[in-house]
Amino acid sequence: MSKNIITISREFGSGGRTVGRMVAEKLGYDFYDQELIAKVMLESGLSEELVRKYDEYATHRSSLLFAIALSGGTDPYTGTGHSFATQVQAAQTKAINDLADKGGCVIVGRGADYVLRDRENALHVFIYADMDFRAKRIVEEYGERDEKPVERLKDKDERRKLYYRSFTSRNWGDYKNYDLSLSTSAVGIEKCADIIVDIAKK
Amino acid sequence: MSKNIITISREFGSGGRTVGRMVAEKLGYDFYDQELIAKVMLESGLSEELVRKYDEYATHRSSLLFAIALSGGTDPYTGTGHSFATQVQAAQTKAINDLADKGGCVIVGRGADYVLRDRENALHVFIYADMDFRAKRIVEEYGERDEKPVERLKDKDERRKLYYRSFTSRNWGDYKNYDLSLSTSAVGIEKCADIIVDIAKK
Repeated sequence: MSKNIITISREFGSGGRTVGRMVAEKLGYDFYDQELIAKVMLESGLSEELVRKYDEYATHRSSLLFAIALSGGTDPYTGTGHSFATQVQAAQTKAINDLADKGGCVIVGRGADYVLRDRENALHVFIYADMDFRAKRIVEEYGERDEKPVERLKDKDERRKLYYRSFTSRNWGDYKNYDLSLSTSAVGIEKCADIIVDIAKK
Repeated sequence: MSKNIITISREFGSGGRTVGRMVAEKLGYDFYDQELIAKVMLESGLSEELVRKYDEYATHRSSLLFAIALSGGTDPYTGTGHSFATQVQAAQTKAINDLADKGGCVIVGRGADYVLRDRENALHVFIYADMDFRAKRIVEEYGERDEKPVERLKDKDERRKLYYRSFTSRNWGDYKNYDLSLSTSAVGIEKCADIIVDIAKK
């Protein structure tokens, strides 16, 4: 059975988003990343403010504050608690399911592998890379500042783990959640895309 | 740089050994599994009795007894302690390094991914599969009895985790230990072999 939904989870800086875009192009599928899924979430009536706040926690605030907010505690900055995360996660689940119902898509991030875990026509991929590769990449490709990239990557990883765990109750990166896991630093970005396309067509 | 050493770690029943044999055939590489590496270990002067006992722990005894023996406690059955495991592990490390020095080989099991972790010409692969696939396979292919295969697989997984941890201080199946991880139940045994060959030739 060929796979017409492909989810990609990835370590920050691994090039997983680029792999996803290449796969979508090669297969003629639609491509959705974090921002494009957010747009779909807004269509469900969710306020942009809530989505922005949720994403801010997941990407900018310290992992500790994020963990507190997601576990039901109160954010000392905003005075708000757990319920906004629950609302956003429900909208996110609906948006991802709606996209998957249409088929022919590559979805990067937002725990799509978890939301679509029981779909037989979905292929779930995890993309990672060694630290040197990622550190070089976030400085060169994303234009991040050239200070302590390894420390920033470790913090990103920690936050992504917390985010994934709060949304899915699973461990981020656990091989059992995916059909395959590929290291872009070992395999190469283009080759990763080719392998995924090849398996999806099977 | 092409990879002329390929290590394969695998879940029991996933078909990882078969994948390894296919890869070796396609690339014209030598193939070594647990038993063939044991033969090399004996050449270093280790007694067959010690190797047999070590492997018996790793594959037949209860995970609890195995954990006790490897952690330095005393096996209530034999009265022996940790030192035999240390001796066997040293011989295993030497055997795997000697095989790798010759190059052009596929090595399945025995923590070869850990022993050869710093070799730039090595490709490290993890092979797994979903429980149904593995349960069916151990009954049909290995002729294991048709009783509680899932329970037996879970026990095997537990033992392999303990074994790997005692030998490597790493977590078995952690994606960071490998260049790629492939599910045979999702990707197919032949296709897994083709992907590995393709990457090794790169």
